[in-house]
Amino acid sequence: MKYRVITITREFGSGGRTIGKALGEKLGYDVYDYEFVKKMTMESGLEEDYIKEHGEDANKKNLFSFMWTNAGGSVSDQLFIAQREAITNLANKGNCIIVGRCADYILKDREDVFHVFIHADMDFRAERIVNKYGERTDSPEKRIKDKDKRRKAYYRYYTNYKWGDATNYHMSLNSGKLGIDHCVDLIMKGMDDTL
Amino acid sequence: MKYRVITITREFGSGGRTIGKALGEKLGYDVYDYEFVKKMTMESGLEEDYIKEHGEDANKKNLFSFMWTNAGGSVSDQLFIAQREAITNLANKGNCIIVGRCADYILKDREDVFHVFIHADMDFRAERIVNKYGERTDSPEKRIKDKDKRRKAYYRYYTNYKWGDATNYHMSLNSGKLGIDHCVDLIMKGMDDTL
Repeated sequence: MKYRVITITREFGSGGRTIGKALGEKLGYDVYDYEFVKKMTMESGLEEDYIKEHGEDANKKNLFSFMWTNAGGSVSDQLFIAQREAITNLANKGNCIIVGRCADYILKDREDVFHVFIHADMDFRAERIVNKYGERTDSPEKRIKDKDKRRKAYYRYYTNYKWGDATNYHMSLNSGKLGIDHCVDLIMKGMDDTL
Repeated sequence: MKYRVITITREFGSGGRTIGKALGEKLGYDVYDYEFVKKMTMESGLEEDYIKEHGEDANKKNLFSFMWTNAGGSVSDQLFIAQREAITNLANKGNCIIVGRCADYILKDREDVFHVFIHADMDFRAERIVNKYGERTDSPEKRIKDKDKRRKAYYRYYTNYKWGDATNYHMSLNSGKLGIDHCVDLIMKGMDDTL
């Protein structure tokens, strides 16, 4: 197997994290997501609350503050730099799956990394965030649109790439149309270069 | 098999047409591309030269003329409308693969259509258009960039969607990284809803 690392970039509610976990079990790879960022950043001395506030789901106001303070290196930028270093170290060790955190962009030039984008239609995601993630049942669509907007803005700010552009990935899959388990199998097959 | 139709949207030089033909042979589906548009449009009374000039690869000047004459229904718009009708009729008959021609957009609301986007890195495409398509060997990158630009503009004009947005497709695949034959297998597996 040529690919020692998988990155999964995903729309909120599309099941990208679940797919990552299932892949990790099948391949014997470690899976890193929000919990990893938390641990890594705690070690670097930044507080968890700050990550929640300024991390991937930072709101627009915070993103504006990123921009204004960028020249001097804002704490948000320091957080991103800490994440980037941690992700690069993890990729060097290999045998891991990294969900979110602009890992696709950070590792874009490595030949041993397989990049995946997971998306799904609104109905599928709305049903999923209520029944699987236990989110409140009122206006799940509004919550998803809000999250999408924040992820796009964060991704755009730190990568200057377009969120959801197929050309950044080996495979992009609609988990709502294909099914979560089917996506896992397709990624396994896709990254198998012995076929 | 739930899917009676496949649409393939593709970057120039990515091998999307070759993938379509291979899928057609495996599934026993008819494959429609430029030749189909030619035939269909000849029947509708528009000339082949006009399609070449104003079709998917229309240049920017022509696209501006589309816009200026749109209110009255330009010949280019008539061509698109004729294409749209033909594509809808083909989808109604089923068991077919349609390459390009905004078929993904035209058939986006049908449950029996499987949408695929094929892309590849510049090096792969440049090598391919010279060695497989027999294009001139000087500046293949320039030719690809020019074609990309025209396809994007045409697609945007007629669909108002972003070219290459993963969320418009069941699967998007990098044929350069995955290989042409591997893409064919992945699409076959992806659209098999018995798995």
